[in-house]
Amino acid sequence: MSTLSIATAEEVKDLLADDLAAIEREFSQQSASPIEVVTDIATYLMSGGGKRIRPLLLLLSAKALGCENHSRIRLGAVVEMLHTATLVHDDIIDEADMRRGRPSANTTWGNSKCVLAGDWLYMQAFEAALEERNFKVLDYLISLTKQMVEGELLQMEKLGHLINEEEYFDLIYRKTACLFKVSMQLGAAITHADDDIESHLGEYGRNLGLAFQIVDDVLDLTAAENVLGKPVASDLREGKATLAVIHALERGTGADREAIRTVLADRSFDRVSHVQILEILHRHGSIAYAMDTACAYAEAARLSLSMLPDTDAKRALLWVPGFVTSRDR
Amino acid sequence: MSTLSIATAEEVKDLLADDLAAIEREFSQQSASPIEVVTDIATYLMSGGGKRIRPLLLLLSAKALGCENHSRIRLGAVVEMLHTATLVHDDIIDEADMRRGRPSANTTWGNSKCVLAGDWLYMQAFEAALEERNFKVLDYLISLTKQMVEGELLQMEKLGHLINEEEYFDLIYRKTACLFKVSMQLGAAITHADDDIESHLGEYGRNLGLAFQIVDDVLDLTAAENVLGKPVASDLREGKATLAVIHALERGTGADREAIRTVLADRSFDRVSHVQILEILHRHGSIAYAMDTACAYAEAARLSLSMLPDTDAKRALLWVPGFVTSRDR
Repeated sequence: MSTLSIATAEEVKDLLADDLAAIEREFSQQSASPIEVVTDIATYLMSGGGKRIRPLLLLLSAKALGCENHSRIRLGAVVEMLHTATLVHDDIIDEADMRRGRPSANTTWGNSKCVLAGDWLYMQAFEAALEERNFKVLDYLISLTKQMVEGELLQMEKLGHLINEEEYFDLIYRKTACLFKVSMQLGAAITHADDDIESHLGEYGRNLGLAFQIVDDVLDLTAAENVLGKPVASDLREGKATLAVIHALERGTGADREAIRTVLADRSFDRVSHVQILEILHRHGSIAYAMDTACAYAEAARLSLSMLPDTDAKRALLWVPGFVTSRDR
Repeated sequence: MSTLSIATAEEVKDLLADDLAAIEREFSQQSASPIEVVTDIATYLMSGGGKRIRPLLLLLSAKALGCENHSRIRLGAVVEMLHTATLVHDDIIDEADMRRGRPSANTTWGNSKCVLAGDWLYMQAFEAALEERNFKVLDYLISLTKQMVEGELLQMEKLGHLINEEEYFDLIYRKTACLFKVSMQLGAAITHADDDIESHLGEYGRNLGLAFQIVDDVLDLTAAENVLGKPVASDLREGKATLAVIHALERGTGADREAIRTVLADRSFDRVSHVQILEILHRHGSIAYAMDTACAYAEAARLSLSMLPDTDAKRALLWVPGFVTSRDR
C-alpha cells in the first residue's frame, strides 16, 4: 500500500471548494422548471443540507485521474439528484415525517406530488447525463437506478422479518454502496481511464458505501435525535433488522431474540423499549461488531487505491473512509 | 392529399399481427426480474389488456419507411412500458380503484410498492432503449417522460379549478399526444429518415394523440361503466374540466356554470347529478363540439401523411384516426 499521507478535512475542503460550489450552481439550474411547483419541490429537496458525499467521490475520482472538464460538475450534480429522487420516493414509502432535521417533502406537498417530483428528478438527472453523449455513463446510471429500486422493493418484502447477514449486505449494497461505486466509476469513465483502474475505483466506492451504510444503521440505533435530524431507531420501528441487530439475534439468549423479534413484528417499542434493545446489543458486543465491520470495509476501500498515482485527490480519498466511520450523524 | 384507400381493421390486424405478438414476447422478457414482486407487478401491469396503440403507431411509422429490424419491436415495447409506468403512478395519485376493467395495481399491492414498480418500469424501459445505442432515441424518451410528469403535476395544480381551452390542450398534449408523437418519431429515428419526414410523422402523432384524448374525455362523460372498464365521469369527480365541460362553461347560463363549478369544487355529484351535467352539455352542443374537434384533429393527422410513399403501412395509418374517433371505450 502507498505510504502517502492522509489529507485533513481542511485540505479536502480546500481541494474541492470550487467544484462543490459549481455543483450547487448546477443544482439551481437543473431544478428550474416552467412548472412552478416542480421548481419549488426540487429546490427544497436539493437544498436540504445533504452531505454531498456522492458528488465528492465523483470529483475526487475524476481529479485523481487528472480530469478537470465540466463533465465532473454535471455528473456530480446528477448523482446527487438521483440520490435525492430515491430519498423522496423512500420517504413516501416509509411515511417519514422528518429528513435532515426538517419536514420531509411528503409532509409539505403530499405524497402525490412527491411521487411526481421524484419522477421528475430522475428524468432531469438522466437528461443532464445524456448531454455527456457517453453510453457508458448512461449504462451505469440506469442500471444503478434499477438496482436501487429493486433493493427498496426487496427491503419492503423483508420488513418485520429476520434476515441474515448475506441478505443485509445485498440490501445495503443496493441502497448505498451501488451509487458510491458508480460515482467513483463515473469519475473514471469521463477520463476514459483503463478498465482496471475504473474497476479498482469502483471497488473503493463499494467498500466505502458498505462502511457508510453500516455506520448509518448503527447511528440510527445509538445517536441522539437532535444530532441525527430524524427520529432514532427508525429502522427497528419500520421493521428493519440491521447489522448489529442481526449479530445479537445470532448470539443472544432466547429472551434476547424474543425481545428483538417483538420489536420487529410490532414495529414499535410498546412492549420492549429502545433501552432494552440497546442493552442487549451492548451485552453481546453487537454495536462494536458492526463498527468493526464498517472499519474493515473502510480499510478495504483505502487498499483499493494502491494503483493510483500520488496526488492530493488520492490523499483526500484516503481521508474519506475515516470520516465516514467516525461521523456522529 | 393522397387518394390511397384506407385500410380496414382486418387488414391492419393482419399487417401487424406478427410484430405485435413479438412485442408481447418482448414484454414477458422485459418484465422478468430476480425480485419476485417486481416480476409479479410488472407482469400484471403489462398484461392489462391495453390497446397497444403506442407500439402500433411506432410499428406503422417504421414500416411506412421500410424498417424491418428488431429496433421496432424493442422500442414498441419501450413506449408501452413507459405508458404503463405513468399509469401506475397516476393511479396512485388519482386513488383509482379500477383500470381497464380490473382492480388497479395500487389496490392489489398498495401504493408503496406501486411507486417503486413504476420507477422500475421506467428504468427497464430506458435500459432497453439504451441497447439501441442511439442518442436521439434517448433524447426523445427522456424529454418525453419529463414532459408527461410535468403535465401530471400541472394537472394537480388545476384540480377543482376552471381552465381554458389553451390550458386543456397543453395538458392533453403532455398526457397523451406527446407520447403518440414520440412513438411516430421513433419509427423514423430508427430508419434514419430525413428530419422533414420525421417531423411530419411527429405531427401525425401529435394530432392523433389530441384526437384520442379528447375522445377519451368525452367517453368518460358519456360511456356506460361496464363498457369503459372504470367508473364514469371520473374526471369531474376528480375535479378535472375537459373540453366539453369547458365549452359548456363558456356558453352556459349562470345556473349552468354554477352547476358545473359545484361538481368540480365538490369533486362529487352529491349536490348536482351526473344526469344534470349531461343535460347541460347536450343542450349547448358541447359533446358534439368536442367530438367535432377530435374529428378535425383526426383529419389533420391524415393530412400529415401526404409525403409518405403509398404502402400498406400508410393505408393503416390512414385508418387509425377513424378508429380512434369512433371507439366506444
